[in-house]
Amino acid sequence: MTLPEITSEPLLPRGVKDFLPAKAAKISFLAETALELFRRWGFRPVVPPSLEYLDVLERGMGHGLRDKTFRFDDRQDGKLIAFSPDMTPQVARIVATRMHEMPLPLRLCYSGRVLRHAEQQSGKDREIFQVGVELIGLQSPEADAEMIAMAIESLKAFGATTFTIDVGQVEFYRGVMAQLDLPESDLRALQALIARKEVTGLTRLLDTLTLPAAVREEVLVLPRLFGGREVLEKAAATVHNERSCQALANLRQVLAVLATYGLEEYVTFDLGELRGLDYHSGITFQGFLPGLGRAVCQGGRYDHLTARYGYPAAATGFAFDLLNLLSALDLVLEHAAEQTTDVLLFQSGADKQAAQKIAQALRERGYSAARDIIPRSLDESLAYAKRMSFRHVLVIEAQQPEVRVIWVDDGHERTISLQAILDGDVAL
Amino acid sequence: MTLPEITSEPLLPRGVKDFLPAKAAKISFLAETALELFRRWGFRPVVPPSLEYLDVLERGMGHGLRDKTFRFDDRQDGKLIAFSPDMTPQVARIVATRMHEMPLPLRLCYSGRVLRHAEQQSGKDREIFQVGVELIGLQSPEADAEMIAMAIESLKAFGATTFTIDVGQVEFYRGVMAQLDLPESDLRALQALIARKEVTGLTRLLDTLTLPAAVREEVLVLPRLFGGREVLEKAAATVHNERSCQALANLRQVLAVLATYGLEEYVTFDLGELRGLDYHSGITFQGFLPGLGRAVCQGGRYDHLTARYGYPAAATGFAFDLLNLLSALDLVLEHAAEQTTDVLLFQSGADKQAAQKIAQALRERGYSAARDIIPRSLDESLAYAKRMSFRHVLVIEAQQPEVRVIWVDDGHERTISLQAILDGDVAL
Repeated sequence: MTLPEITSEPLLPRGVKDFLPAKAAKISFLAETALELFRRWGFRPVVPPSLEYLDVLERGMGHGLRDKTFRFDDRQDGKLIAFSPDMTPQVARIVATRMHEMPLPLRLCYSGRVLRHAEQQSGKDREIFQVGVELIGLQSPEADAEMIAMAIESLKAFGATTFTIDVGQVEFYRGVMAQLDLPESDLRALQALIARKEVTGLTRLLDTLTLPAAVREEVLVLPRLFGGREVLEKAAATVHNERSCQALANLRQVLAVLATYGLEEYVTFDLGELRGLDYHSGITFQGFLPGLGRAVCQGGRYDHLTARYGYPAAATGFAFDLLNLLSALDLVLEHAAEQTTDVLLFQSGADKQAAQKIAQALRERGYSAARDIIPRSLDESLAYAKRMSFRHVLVIEAQQPEVRVIWVDDGHERTISLQAILDGDVAL
Repeated sequence: MTLPEITSEPLLPRGVKDFLPAKAAKISFLAETALELFRRWGFRPVVPPSLEYLDVLERGMGHGLRDKTFRFDDRQDGKLIAFSPDMTPQVARIVATRMHEMPLPLRLCYSGRVLRHAEQQSGKDREIFQVGVELIGLQSPEADAEMIAMAIESLKAFGATTFTIDVGQVEFYRGVMAQLDLPESDLRALQALIARKEVTGLTRLLDTLTLPAAVREEVLVLPRLFGGREVLEKAAATVHNERSCQALANLRQVLAVLATYGLEEYVTFDLGELRGLDYHSGITFQGFLPGLGRAVCQGGRYDHLTARYGYPAAATGFAFDLLNLLSALDLVLEHAAEQTTDVLLFQSGADKQAAQKIAQALRERGYSAARDIIPRSLDESLAYAKRMSFRHVLVIEAQQPEVRVIWVDDGHERTISLQAILDGDVAL
């Protein structure tokens, strides 16, 4: 059998993938585990649409995402339509326009896919699988701590053992930078050097600028403010502007709540970077697993986003990137999302009724059972069962009161009574 | 608080919706129930991407869907990209190009959203939530019966009690029509009259055409061939061309398998219509619930679709339309997808540790528990709990060995030991 010319070219656009059963089961496991945990924390689902009017969506999007948005003219009313690149602005719109009469706080969660253009050759996914939560109406550091605690508990539930939640505070950074009365080009150059943690280059650039000594020190310390808890003390020793100091106090409060949860060990800090999205207004955080540079989750406080849709409310939230989780946890998930089917039913003879009834009884007890409808020999069925990871083959002979159960992995077998299976009285 | 001008225009493009928690929970329930049932029948998940190259996707799409496909130029490589309007061609492509070395049969399932342009003013959804299965590699009527049985078992699992699965056979219809050596315009006119079951108009048109008497009778009976089992006899009495007779024999075989499943009572027939998609090649079926004209599921045999991607294999499958199910079963699902949270934790005083530990212990037992972080009075918390459908409020006083449990619906309460909750020893 020859495949046509189609296989000589890439079959799929860049940045999207097919997921076959082994990976697909892991994606389902991750999404279901997260959603079940969110449910236990009192969060309820919302489903935003894939399509939005571009102008409505852009109210809530940062500049960074605007360029990455898939958009097109709608045939129907001539307006520009966008495929959402981020579900948080959508949930903010839903809260502001459709749930503003509900009492606060609102605890909402979602699971879905968004689309983002990625730079060519970047190898980045353009289709992003997100599962996340939004907590609307709470200003307190406890709400931010709840987000971080949920991220940590979710990662544990996925089976991750080693991970860090890297916490920042956009107001700390903004407090330092707001003191600089510099041309836009100098500011950009400074930000780029800080982001790349290039201390030598930063020092050299600062030497060419006229800044008060205290301010210069605050800028210069930024790329060094990453690591463990000691970062907060290091920051407090050098940075004295009021906005940054309030941000530090807020960070300490969040950390204190996490300590009562017993979760502070997972937290690291990075105050020298603006890693949140444009709408973030306080704490931000990203989750990292060993061996993967990309974050597996990110989130933070965004107190001004729902106001863009007409309803001011404090808010905080975060989302997992399921494909990044899949990359980092592929082996760990091998067991959790095992791809086996419990039973393949093999029946010789024309009367299929017994096989159908047995299948029905097994399914009612929660077992997975497929019938081998193809006419073939038992040996061929066993080979199929092995290749497709079935655990057992049940051999049913018409009119016989017993069935043979064959263990596919080692071939051992025993006979059990057909009636016992029909009565739901068998553990496989 | 005033909403800005944004609410004076429609916030969302036509044909898409926001789903708030009550509806979103029902959609989740439907998808999860179907996927769990599919798992028990031995089906394994695949996840096709949202984006495909248009030319690749069009190989597997019928003409009917081509016009409804959202498409745009890809910035990256200049090729036309499409948002899939139907997942079956995608699964066929995946099977043909990435799973052709696996032994057959393959049992695959999926859950996702597709997009279709709809005629303006039709009020139809443009975003369609599909959950479905494909069974690849089996030619036998038992495979088609498996699809119909799974559709019926799923509908029962959703809580539906009254429904019909309306079965057709595209080969029966095509067998009749293939005998007509008529201009395309006459054929179209005939098909339109048959589809609308306009017997008088059909008779009049046939009077103007020169056809053998037997063929004329076969065409004329088509719009009458819908209803119960007797339809098969009625068809056999009038229609004698070989292709249609084989289709009838196939229908009888499928019905016989369904009879051994004990499911024939749900089946009706409609042989006078081509309701399948362009790729269907045998049995087709649609599921209907009372009060909804649109089908809640549809499927059928498509033996020539994977070959379009280079791998010929018999196949059959079906998918649920979750939003149509939601419309038809909204009330039935009220209980299954109940939107309550078990516990709201109210703690006075500054020490929140007890509340956090209680929340943790409850969540570990599977309860949903949210902390009331907002500083407010117990009366205010109770009002919030009532409005947001919490079942209990737990009142925790610092340093006290007991907590008060208040039933939100009727206000009665009792005290329970804090230690018992921490030990997981309480049923709420």
